[in-house]
Amino acid sequence: MVTENVNVARSRLVLEYDGTGYYGFQRQNGLPSVAERVEEALTILFGHPTKITAAGRTDAGVHATGQVASCTTTSGLPLRRVAVALSALLRADRIAVLRVVEREAGFSARRDALGRTYRYRILNRIAPSPLLAHRVFHIGARLDVDVMRAGAQALVGDHDFAAFCAAESREKTTRRTVRRIELEREADLLDLVITADSFVHNMVRIIAGTLVEVGRGRRAAGEVATLLASGDRTKAGFTAPAHALYLEKVDYDPPV
Amino acid sequence: MVTENVNVARSRLVLEYDGTGYYGFQRQNGLPSVAERVEEALTILFGHPTKITAAGRTDAGVHATGQVASCTTTSGLPLRRVAVALSALLRADRIAVLRVVEREAGFSARRDALGRTYRYRILNRIAPSPLLAHRVFHIGARLDVDVMRAGAQALVGDHDFAAFCAAESREKTTRRTVRRIELEREADLLDLVITADSFVHNMVRIIAGTLVEVGRGRRAAGEVATLLASGDRTKAGFTAPAHALYLEKVDYDPPV
Repeated sequence: MVTENVNVARSRLVLEYDGTGYYGFQRQNGLPSVAERVEEALTILFGHPTKITAAGRTDAGVHATGQVASCTTTSGLPLRRVAVALSALLRADRIAVLRVVEREAGFSARRDALGRTYRYRILNRIAPSPLLAHRVFHIGARLDVDVMRAGAQALVGDHDFAAFCAAESREKTTRRTVRRIELEREADLLDLVITADSFVHNMVRIIAGTLVEVGRGRRAAGEVATLLASGDRTKAGFTAPAHALYLEKVDYDPPV
Repeated sequence: MVTENVNVARSRLVLEYDGTGYYGFQRQNGLPSVAERVEEALTILFGHPTKITAAGRTDAGVHATGQVASCTTTSGLPLRRVAVALSALLRADRIAVLRVVEREAGFSARRDALGRTYRYRILNRIAPSPLLAHRVFHIGARLDVDVMRAGAQALVGDHDFAAFCAAESREKTTRRTVRRIELEREADLLDLVITADSFVHNMVRIIAGTLVEVGRGRRAAGEVATLLASGDRTKAGFTAPAHALYLEKVDYDPPV
């Protein structure tokens, strides 16, 4: 609990990062994590030990363009200066702070999040892209986007996503609500964009892998509903690679 | 000259590359160049020494999404296999071969090019972007895109671009024809896209630097016409950095 005090400010930070060199967002003993770097920079800037809580625990290699974290400070630093100074401190770590806003005492980026949006980027052309290395999943074979869209619609709504949850996961419940799932095509890039209240472990990557199998004609679009209903992870597709996944947006009320 | 021979094929290759680690496209004694890597890979693949000629001599750090090169082979390899094998050989070099097409004997990617299109990418927001590092020129200050567009229009047409040519350059003539110049805005990205018959040395980067000064209000849009007419390099803006420049397209007749 944060004491009501004129010197105590609760902040919400919006972060972009290149996940390539990290073992994920969350601290893990001894391994490089985004949280560790951000907390170190905040501790330097604020002049007191600082911990952050994030909306999405992105895995190793996963990027973010709109991760959100919360922290508390007694430093009294102006927020605008915090964003610019943090981005400068974190430049070599390939982390940037896009915005910092003040929130009420007790605000938690994780607990108060109303929804999350992830983007999975597929490059669908014969040649790989050197300029998009570590940024997209390259698939040389032709994908039928229309059947992928048809398959994806079975996932919208309130469902048990056990079939799309990493086998080693220990979620209390695998029930989630998918609000929106879109396949956006622009030239050779095909983006899978999913908004849900929250996600089970590896959910977007297993959905991406399954829809790729549908797009290649290895499964019928109608199978997606069947395997969702089965609750059986072994029935869904492969887990698509982490380096093409982005945590894009987290929703709050009020939004800004 | 290429001898007319059933076993001699003249090819046109379309290349994408990440220019970050290179001292430019052209071979320079001892320094890493894109041409050297491509020629080495072609020599391995064709089984005979192979030289290439390129449409645009991109400078150190400049990228390409549509560079075009020509070469001659007696190998008789099927073209589609050449593209895939070359991309595999050049993967670690961050070069990909997007297409290979057969052209008539004597075709030159450089001499037969009818026009070239370059893209200069500006990220205009307060925070830098770790995911677009070495890909865009980050400008934190606000840019007025409308006045940049107004200034850019003075450059369209047939002009002497001496004021937009690197001082150390030794071009025979600095007269060029700019066919199209656009500023495309999408969210925080501002792309300057220029098509011309050909370009004088550093032309796009000096135009980008000059238009950024216009967009920041440090020059009036009307000054662009005046400094173009002056022919004086010291009157134009700074040379914007190489890492945000892309050779995007080269035009031929027939196009494919």
